[in-house]
Amino acid sequence: MPSAKKQDKFTLVSELAKRRGFFWPSFEIYGGVGGFYTYGPLGALLKRRIEDKFRDFFIRRFGFFEIESSVVMPGKVFEASGHVEHFQEPMVECLKCKRKFRADHLLEEFAGMSSMETEKLSLDEIRKIIVERDIRCPDCGGEFGEPKYFLTMFATTIGPYSDAVGYGRPEAAQGIFVEFKRLYELSRERLPFGVVQIGHALRNEISPRQGLMRLREFTIIDLEFFFDPEDTRCTPLKEVENETLRFLLGETRLKGSEEITELTVKEALEKGYVKVDWQAFFMVLAKKFMASLGVPPEKQRFIEKLDWEKAHYAVQSFDQEVYLDRWGWTEVSGHAYRTDYDLKQHMKFSRVDMRIFKPAEKPIEREEVKITPIPAKIGPAFKKDAAKIMELLSKVDVKELERSFSTKGFYMLEGFKILPEHVQIIRRKVVERGKRFIPHVVEPSFGSDRLFYVALEYAYQLKENRVVLRFPRDIAPVQVGVYPLVSRDGLPEKAMEVHRMLLNEGFYSEYDESGSIGRRYARADEIGVPLGITVDYQTLEDGTVTIRDRDSWSQVRNKIKALPELLHGYFRYKLDFEDLGEPVET
Amino acid sequence: MPSAKKQDKFTLVSELAKRRGFFWPSFEIYGGVGGFYTYGPLGALLKRRIEDKFRDFFIRRFGFFEIESSVVMPGKVFEASGHVEHFQEPMVECLKCKRKFRADHLLEEFAGMSSMETEKLSLDEIRKIIVERDIRCPDCGGEFGEPKYFLTMFATTIGPYSDAVGYGRPEAAQGIFVEFKRLYELSRERLPFGVVQIGHALRNEISPRQGLMRLREFTIIDLEFFFDPEDTRCTPLKEVENETLRFLLGETRLKGSEEITELTVKEALEKGYVKVDWQAFFMVLAKKFMASLGVPPEKQRFIEKLDWEKAHYAVQSFDQEVYLDRWGWTEVSGHAYRTDYDLKQHMKFSRVDMRIFKPAEKPIEREEVKITPIPAKIGPAFKKDAAKIMELLSKVDVKELERSFSTKGFYMLEGFKILPEHVQIIRRKVVERGKRFIPHVVEPSFGSDRLFYVALEYAYQLKENRVVLRFPRDIAPVQVGVYPLVSRDGLPEKAMEVHRMLLNEGFYSEYDESGSIGRRYARADEIGVPLGITVDYQTLEDGTVTIRDRDSWSQVRNKIKALPELLHGYFRYKLDFEDLGEPVET
Repeated sequence: MPSAKKQDKFTLVSELAKRRGFFWPSFEIYGGVGGFYTYGPLGALLKRRIEDKFRDFFIRRFGFFEIESSVVMPGKVFEASGHVEHFQEPMVECLKCKRKFRADHLLEEFAGMSSMETEKLSLDEIRKIIVERDIRCPDCGGEFGEPKYFLTMFATTIGPYSDAVGYGRPEAAQGIFVEFKRLYELSRERLPFGVVQIGHALRNEISPRQGLMRLREFTIIDLEFFFDPEDTRCTPLKEVENETLRFLLGETRLKGSEEITELTVKEALEKGYVKVDWQAFFMVLAKKFMASLGVPPEKQRFIEKLDWEKAHYAVQSFDQEVYLDRWGWTEVSGHAYRTDYDLKQHMKFSRVDMRIFKPAEKPIEREEVKITPIPAKIGPAFKKDAAKIMELLSKVDVKELERSFSTKGFYMLEGFKILPEHVQIIRRKVVERGKRFIPHVVEPSFGSDRLFYVALEYAYQLKENRVVLRFPRDIAPVQVGVYPLVSRDGLPEKAMEVHRMLLNEGFYSEYDESGSIGRRYARADEIGVPLGITVDYQTLEDGTVTIRDRDSWSQVRNKIKALPELLHGYFRYKLDFEDLGEPVET
Repeated sequence: MPSAKKQDKFTLVSELAKRRGFFWPSFEIYGGVGGFYTYGPLGALLKRRIEDKFRDFFIRRFGFFEIESSVVMPGKVFEASGHVEHFQEPMVECLKCKRKFRADHLLEEFAGMSSMETEKLSLDEIRKIIVERDIRCPDCGGEFGEPKYFLTMFATTIGPYSDAVGYGRPEAAQGIFVEFKRLYELSRERLPFGVVQIGHALRNEISPRQGLMRLREFTIIDLEFFFDPEDTRCTPLKEVENETLRFLLGETRLKGSEEITELTVKEALEKGYVKVDWQAFFMVLAKKFMASLGVPPEKQRFIEKLDWEKAHYAVQSFDQEVYLDRWGWTEVSGHAYRTDYDLKQHMKFSRVDMRIFKPAEKPIEREEVKITPIPAKIGPAFKKDAAKIMELLSKVDVKELERSFSTKGFYMLEGFKILPEHVQIIRRKVVERGKRFIPHVVEPSFGSDRLFYVALEYAYQLKENRVVLRFPRDIAPVQVGVYPLVSRDGLPEKAMEVHRMLLNEGFYSEYDESGSIGRRYARADEIGVPLGITVDYQTLEDGTVTIRDRDSWSQVRNKIKALPELLHGYFRYKLDFEDLGEPVET
């Protein structure tokens, strides 16, 4: 309808997504529950392909680990990680209708504040602004009560005891940190190594919004990279150090500007904008990964988080943002330098030593001096105080004792006169072969649902007024459509044969014979099927079929029996469309 | 240690699993929490390969759907599904030490009862047996209190309102049922169709045990197959109808026997042992699937569940069992005929029509007769009662009214005398084009963690006193190891080149140069790497490498540049090991 208000891409994508089965709000028959979405058949396939591509980009090639642990975890884990203390959001309740709202979102909506401003407000400051601006319930106009913090983790109890608190994990990272000791053993006790976990996570948002962008249950991809802070060498960095990254730096933001600073990886590290080589490396990889999902570099940027915006565990943090039609710049991944924060906390709470041993390059010799009391002398000299003196002696500074002996001939220990004959001073050479330390961590962390939505929005394009989802071929949910030109004369049977062969070869193939061939192509374009194979009358004569390209709509022709190898080559990016056969005039 | 007691396979597999990183109990640093396990790097890979193989067997080839929905779901869903009412286990608490136990497990352990017997006991019967047998707390000897039911779902609240109850899903099936209407649309409103969900699920077991076999958080694979109960034709059944299945039938069990009845699929259906063709089809597929994971047919059976053992939603149910070294026959999948139970329940609770329309083969004509009150006559005749009479008339049986008019000339309606002039009787022809009904469902449901453990236990074999994990090649976590024969003379560099090439080709390759070549082969055998590629001095001369077979330990030799195509063919089962090159004398 040309007269209707132009719809933004979110609306268009969401409509298509529902109609063709990519995603939709869950539990519609029960009126829906905010923050829960269901991935339909095409969506679940697309999402899995994106996650598998992540594995290829970030895990397999580097020999990193992937693990799988539980969504529900005992309370202790999140006490240690700081989530119980920090994972809270300010909330206000309408005194009249009892609805509850995210206080910072209200200020953004009704006091014109930015999230950069609201994120640093205390509860008291929030209260004051609400009163000053007379912000009232958007639903019923009622007044708000005192702002409170709300823990945005889902709480439950594990087992039959009501005091065994458990939480739905808000991130997959903790499932990695608590298993660090085993993982370190599996890395043959060598640093650095990376561990990934991809899985569902839960955040009990007060008022979820923005479709797939802010869910109560979502899929997180956390990569924890463990390294020695004294040895941050990143071998693969060399290959990408001249790639550029587009930064929105913290210092720029503090000036109120959104100006982009484009730097090579090398420059960003040399100028100290990024603190750790490996972090810079993962940022380039993240840029390339987003590009491989269809987002051109100029639609990407890395925004440096300001002090009050950073998670409690991070000393430096960049968000990778992608430009989206409705929301503008939107986070798709976070790159945090978590230091030794998490392992240290788990060491403190579990009392299990999380340090690793690092051999020194060459052993360091040093002298150890120890005071050993001689009971046979101290006993008779101090009688009932002997035990106490023995204990006190163990805490005396050896140097002070020796100085006192050599200057005064005795040492006064809390009123007791200690003589050289009461103790023995033992000196021995100690060889230090290394030291113990807690590894540091940089973490690239992706939201799978956002990657999914971004890939869908960027694939959404129009050609001659028809929707064509131009997915990169390796993430397209359905790989190939097989069509008889018409539904008679043995063409359907032949097409079904081709379809079966492709299924046996492992392809995601779809057979369609309903409607005109043009309508079938259009239906396939709308869900982004890269190749369409059509069985026509010539097929019956010479065993060839046409292969149609989703993006150019041009066609080539080749033998059926050549299809498996051609298609394997095409989907592994070894062949282009033009290599698939002889051009056909259309 | 030859003098030690023979260890069962569970012990051996668990030890290997911990040491090499397949799985281990989670949260060990916090003392562990029963029922939670972590899949390590090799385990996560193996588990994913098994799930992907399931997709190949049960989804892709049939064009079935896979969806992904949330683990946390609103309470209403499980009220409708019957889980809130039925998903409970009997529990007793020790009055002295307050520990809680599964009551049925206690009776199995201390009263010598079978689970077949305990499953049908009421709370009162349990109490009586505990008293009679004087069963006491195995920990402290204390007496037990009254048995109670414990809801074995994890409960939480969704959003900031404490009354918005949510549960961790105990099965993935409900995520499919609640979305039935959309899924039916996506199937182009045609039956039958299948929908799968693979994902984490939660059961708050009172006392979890048996390692991976009974977890509080696990991965479930639910396939819901929707069909018209009046049209149960199963096209693909033809291809497998002569396959045999090993049954332990309900009638045999009731006689106290464990005798196997081996029947072809056709016989099982003809004799009525399996009620629905599709259910039989999925059972054969499940048998072939387990075989493809390494479990020979004679180590599999289908046990029919007795009435009191079946889930509340099932009218017929078979468990597929596999023989395990420690536990004997153990369930790996369940095959339940859920009828229209779930959709009907959701229809009742949501008040959304879940019925689908089925066109009749030819339209049926019938006459519809309706009473229409005439207000202009009724008003003056009945005054203030007119409205009431109009309403009552709408509920009157037309035939009775007509009979009364023709015999008596009037009709008495709750004391009011209705005359023919008060109403109009309208007759019209109605053409019924079809009917509405709720589809039926058969459900094959697998526990991914059990499939995983079973595959691992069956792969665990000894050759010359060394452990070799003989995984089928398509589920082996690491596909190929690359080794320089020795760590000098340029062999490591060349081997690294081969390793990189294989990574670029998409293979899971591992490079290893530490220790003797024999030790490296042994390490690889222990985690089931099917192929080992060794770079030796001849490689530097002619560009060939040796390829070693994990199972036979024999070797062949071929060109490096031929490896990608050879390996792709090998892992797709198009080539055997012997096809990979010229035999090498070893």
